[in-house]
Amino acid sequence: MKAVVFKEKGRMSLEERPKPVLLDPRDAIVRVTLTSICSSDIHIKHGAVERAKPGVIVGHEFVGIVEEVGAAVTKLKVGDRVAASVETFCGECFFCRHEKVNNCTDPNGGWALGCRNDGGQAEYVRVPYAENGLTPIPASVSDEAALFTGDILATGFWAAEIADISAGDTIAVLGAGPTGLCTLMCTRLYGPARTIVVDVSDERLALAKAQGLADICLNPLHCDVEAEIMRLTNGRGTDATLEVAGAKGTFELAWRIARPASTVCVVALYDEPQSLPLPSMYGKNLTFKTGGVDACKLDRILQLIEAGKIDTSCLITHRAPLADAMEAYHVFENKLNGVIKYVLTP
Amino acid sequence: MKAVVFKEKGRMSLEERPKPVLLDPRDAIVRVTLTSICSSDIHIKHGAVERAKPGVIVGHEFVGIVEEVGAAVTKLKVGDRVAASVETFCGECFFCRHEKVNNCTDPNGGWALGCRNDGGQAEYVRVPYAENGLTPIPASVSDEAALFTGDILATGFWAAEIADISAGDTIAVLGAGPTGLCTLMCTRLYGPARTIVVDVSDERLALAKAQGLADICLNPLHCDVEAEIMRLTNGRGTDATLEVAGAKGTFELAWRIARPASTVCVVALYDEPQSLPLPSMYGKNLTFKTGGVDACKLDRILQLIEAGKIDTSCLITHRAPLADAMEAYHVFENKLNGVIKYVLTP
Amino acid sequence: MKAVVFKEKGRMSLEERPKPVLLDPRDAIVRVTLTSICSSDIHIKHGAVERAKPGVIVGHEFVGIVEEVGAAVTKLKVGDRVAASVETFCGECFFCRHEKVNNCTDPNGGWALGCRNDGGQAEYVRVPYAENGLTPIPASVSDEAALFTGDILATGFWAAEIADISAGDTIAVLGAGPTGLCTLMCTRLYGPARTIVVDVSDERLALAKAQGLADICLNPLHCDVEAEIMRLTNGRGTDATLEVAGAKGTFELAWRIARPASTVCVVALYDEPQSLPLPSMYGKNLTFKTGGVDACKLDRILQLIEAGKIDTSCLITHRAPLADAMEAYHVFENKLNGVIKYVLTP
Amino acid sequence: MKAVVFKEKGRMSLEERPKPVLLDPRDAIVRVTLTSICSSDIHIKHGAVERAKPGVIVGHEFVGIVEEVGAAVTKLKVGDRVAASVETFCGECFFCRHEKVNNCTDPNGGWALGCRNDGGQAEYVRVPYAENGLTPIPASVSDEAALFTGDILATGFWAAEIADISAGDTIAVLGAGPTGLCTLMCTRLYGPARTIVVDVSDERLALAKAQGLADICLNPLHCDVEAEIMRLTNGRGTDATLEVAGAKGTFELAWRIARPASTVCVVALYDEPQSLPLPSMYGKNLTFKTGGVDACKLDRILQLIEAGKIDTSCLITHRAPLADAMEAYHVFENKLNGVIKYVLTP
Repeated sequence: MKAVVFKEKGRMSLEERPKPVLLDPRDAIVRVTLTSICSSDIHIKHGAVERAKPGVIVGHEFVGIVEEVGAAVTKLKVGDRVAASVETFCGECFFCRHEKVNNCTDPNGGWALGCRNDGGQAEYVRVPYAENGLTPIPASVSDEAALFTGDILATGFWAAEIADISAGDTIAVLGAGPTGLCTLMCTRLYGPARTIVVDVSDERLALAKAQGLADICLNPLHCDVEAEIMRLTNGRGTDATLEVAGAKGTFELAWRIARPASTVCVVALYDEPQSLPLPSMYGKNLTFKTGGVDACKLDRILQLIEAGKIDTSCLITHRAPLADAMEAYHVFENKLNGVIKYVLTP
Repeated sequence: MKAVVFKEKGRMSLEERPKPVLLDPRDAIVRVTLTSICSSDIHIKHGAVERAKPGVIVGHEFVGIVEEVGAAVTKLKVGDRVAASVETFCGECFFCRHEKVNNCTDPNGGWALGCRNDGGQAEYVRVPYAENGLTPIPASVSDEAALFTGDILATGFWAAEIADISAGDTIAVLGAGPTGLCTLMCTRLYGPARTIVVDVSDERLALAKAQGLADICLNPLHCDVEAEIMRLTNGRGTDATLEVAGAKGTFELAWRIARPASTVCVVALYDEPQSLPLPSMYGKNLTFKTGGVDACKLDRILQLIEAGKIDTSCLITHRAPLADAMEAYHVFENKLNGVIKYVLTP
Repeated sequence: MKAVVFKEKGRMSLEERPKPVLLDPRDAIVRVTLTSICSSDIHIKHGAVERAKPGVIVGHEFVGIVEEVGAAVTKLKVGDRVAASVETFCGECFFCRHEKVNNCTDPNGGWALGCRNDGGQAEYVRVPYAENGLTPIPASVSDEAALFTGDILATGFWAAEIADISAGDTIAVLGAGPTGLCTLMCTRLYGPARTIVVDVSDERLALAKAQGLADICLNPLHCDVEAEIMRLTNGRGTDATLEVAGAKGTFELAWRIARPASTVCVVALYDEPQSLPLPSMYGKNLTFKTGGVDACKLDRILQLIEAGKIDTSCLITHRAPLADAMEAYHVFENKLNGVIKYVLTP
Repeated sequence: MKAVVFKEKGRMSLEERPKPVLLDPRDAIVRVTLTSICSSDIHIKHGAVERAKPGVIVGHEFVGIVEEVGAAVTKLKVGDRVAASVETFCGECFFCRHEKVNNCTDPNGGWALGCRNDGGQAEYVRVPYAENGLTPIPASVSDEAALFTGDILATGFWAAEIADISAGDTIAVLGAGPTGLCTLMCTRLYGPARTIVVDVSDERLALAKAQGLADICLNPLHCDVEAEIMRLTNGRGTDATLEVAGAKGTFELAWRIARPASTVCVVALYDEPQSLPLPSMYGKNLTFKTGGVDACKLDRILQLIEAGKIDTSCLITHRAPLADAMEAYHVFENKLNGVIKYVLTP
């Protein structure tokens, strides 16, 4: 079968590989029907993901059809259309049993698919702990609509869930890239009165506005964001603050605009350690939450998509067959042609 | 000044009464600009509210302008346009200090306005603990838009807040009367995937649907509600259940349709004790929450109204000057002319 | 092997039965080293447990040693000393994935062991979903110390956990039988300032006091419990109330003594439906929680036992070999010789 | 009257000052019966507290008797014996109404007593918002037993409350000074299975152990604390981590020993900003909470003291009349004679 393989630092390659087989009674084999390229794949290509194993088939955002199941798989059946989770989890370790599945301590646990284990930019993929890692897609939800459920959308869902948003709050989301947009789609579920979105790209801000995801858009290139937020909140600050940008100065901006006794949810990936000026923020009583994907709520996310309460279709700007994967990587990596997300059909 | 007075069981009367004066350093005098009739006023008229004091001026849903403040009132000033809370609370007792203000133990605490203390169906009203009982209305919010903030909307806000709704849930609200509609306006803030509304009136269901408050409408006169909900949820039941109807059988319906390990929020007033069949529901792990107005969140509710996230204007069907209050009571009590809420202007 | 079998309504029998074998890749076979008789076993005997299957080997409180594991069991190994959970759960259904394991919807889920599936009053037992149903016992914890972990202690742990106890509260536990005592051992973990225990038996109250589990003991045969609690709390009531008695009038006592805006945790089993007088308790803002065993926290409970923070040894009053099980049932059922718990060694 | 006055950077002075008078209807005058020196007073002396006003009477840890109350004070009466809170709060601003009283935005709010407003190292003190700032002491609780309620004990209470401790957890408290010991007294209320205490002083560790506040004591001068904690927790880390030391490296130690998906509660004051190495801790899903005194729970703390569940008497090592305050400052500041807390009687 065709598959995108991480060969070594700097090189991805489209290759012929054998179709995977069941290795464990809890495995399933999935025939991939749609997959996409994630910025994490680019990080792998550039050697920035230490645990990524050269020779691995990449891809952790995909949907497909269950082709075969192991003897211990009883809740999925052959023919089920499913969304995959980027995280693999066993369901039985301490963390899994306490709903902290992305800290699963199983040898296969965590971000393994398309990183340590062969992933989904291929015609077929083996999914360990299949009943946990695969969630049936409702009939009325298309493959494209379900595609981001298990990674960037699950990230936004997690962020919104832990950000301590109360109905009526004024919140800020820093960053309106793909994950920022997914975060906005999910914070909306928590009843904020006003959502302030901050990004350096007017285009992205316009998209957020057009999608009804933002009440107020602020671009630090055009205004003093901190001053403007203090003006808008009568000097109080934002009731919940989600930092999805990970750019220079955005972590500091987040705790500056945050209201005393509020939560700053740190979703972004940073290249460098950040400074936490505890002496000067003493008495501000801030909570900082760092986190990632919530891999055990895919069923909820799919219900919201089915009900029309979440719609990620605006993110898909490019489509191609898997055979053109190398050209797609080129476009995606270099942000050509206004690409947001590039999807591939095996 | 003109005021609607509860004379004795069965009789309300429009009378001349002296303008109220400050009695305590924390009081304020409010000039009422708009008030409405609540079904609780009808209960008072019929002697169904034990603590209601004959001779009292009724009215607990009103907005107005601060006319005068006591020496200890520093956060409100003369001229402020304010929404009143049905609940009076001191801010210092055990319950107030722990955000349980509707169990305030102060002698003036609880539902006192228009019940034990002179209320707001009058030209002026004295409001004890004015800084707690009055909340400034944002400039862009009209009197009509703010009118229900302190009573039926605060009830819906409280109910939605304690009902343990998670984003993506399928929820049910039983009852689509004024409080049911307010509850729906607030449950929407918690991100349910699907909202099922149940009422015996097709007209009310149609209103809920037209206002975008319901995904699925069920009328027990036309279908088997329990069976239909089980079908819709694959036999699981509703993830959160809010009982606002208080009719015969609705309490039982609520715990029957509730999913195991979920919450039933009981907002309705009942005429009779209800049966809790604990032997047959053993192992279902249900939580029952009973409650009322959340009187300390009026600022949040007004922010949501200001932001356009809550809009109660559809509830106002009738308007008249306070001088016509007796005719308004007649229409409202007898549900004439499709009345939902009747507002009066002093 | 020897096993206690539920033959038909009214009759248990000690019989020879074949040693169980693995039926599923996720099963384990456990050699039982200690087991006890529970009041639920007596309910089975009397035909009061509908789902109990004639011919089933009873017993759901036991510890033992893993003898054999299925192919999909990787986290337990042969030779592990383990405590069993009364509840079987799959770990993958909706409820399991959200930490509500005692509502597991798997065909084997819920109270199955010793009820629908062969249980632990035998020399060997097959445990489905073994990684969920069995928890390793720390080396320093004896079989007797661990024996109640999976049933009555897990019940008390669950009750204390959901009762909304805050540090400094005055709480009441109604009932000081085995489950009441286990509940008291666990409520102590939540920092109440004062614990009031109510029971009709002075002997049980004395035991609770002697074990340091109660600050105040009240016997309704000797005092007006409601009046006394109101006196002790300056008329406010108890901050958290746990009803473990299930006797006539104890449900009503629970909501009467409960402080406004507090939680009543209903742990007891009742023979009859209870009345919830919502009209007269309107505005009291009570929460009622009904529940059972928390089967996914056995590791925590065992850590507390290991650390000496929970000690159930005072509950074991009688010991015998499994061969004498019929005599033990006779003593336990008829409450002879001061029996609290009767343990059996296969 | 005699009072300790902050004259200017580097100088405290014992002076004669006029007895304070009521300035607002919500004020009370308290006759101080016992007060103590806090390390924050030393910070004031050294000019390290910017908002401290030269000329102010210092002192924020004190108990006394209500001498006079303003016209709007109804819940306290002359003669009440009371514990003072270090924080002043109005009870009506946004933060107060949402139980976040130490972010009170009133001009008098926050740490004002003994800093911006005249404090309690004096014979008399004026307390603004007296019903909030003063809490009646139960008759059986001595002045010495109640003395730390409003500052270091309220800090420990807050820290324990927000640290997300679950019953059965293994927790770590870094620092066993006065605030560390108070924190330990309060974390014990949350049912940890094991408490690990870390300090560089064997003497303090011995005190913690002797008071029953620690299960395991670790001194970084004698062992590799991180390695030892990983060994004790089978590599998992501590379930909750409270950093009260504020020394070099202790912030880093805190997040290193913390279990994935757990909370690090930062109680310490630091001289310098700390580094938060988000890239290397990505995926660890940690929550950082920063905070301070919980000034609205003094009633609970006093109930725990009354019930014997908290006992701070071990902290008082030195006593003198207020007239000897300057000598007491000398001893306390230079940590002479094994001083932990020095109390003064006016």
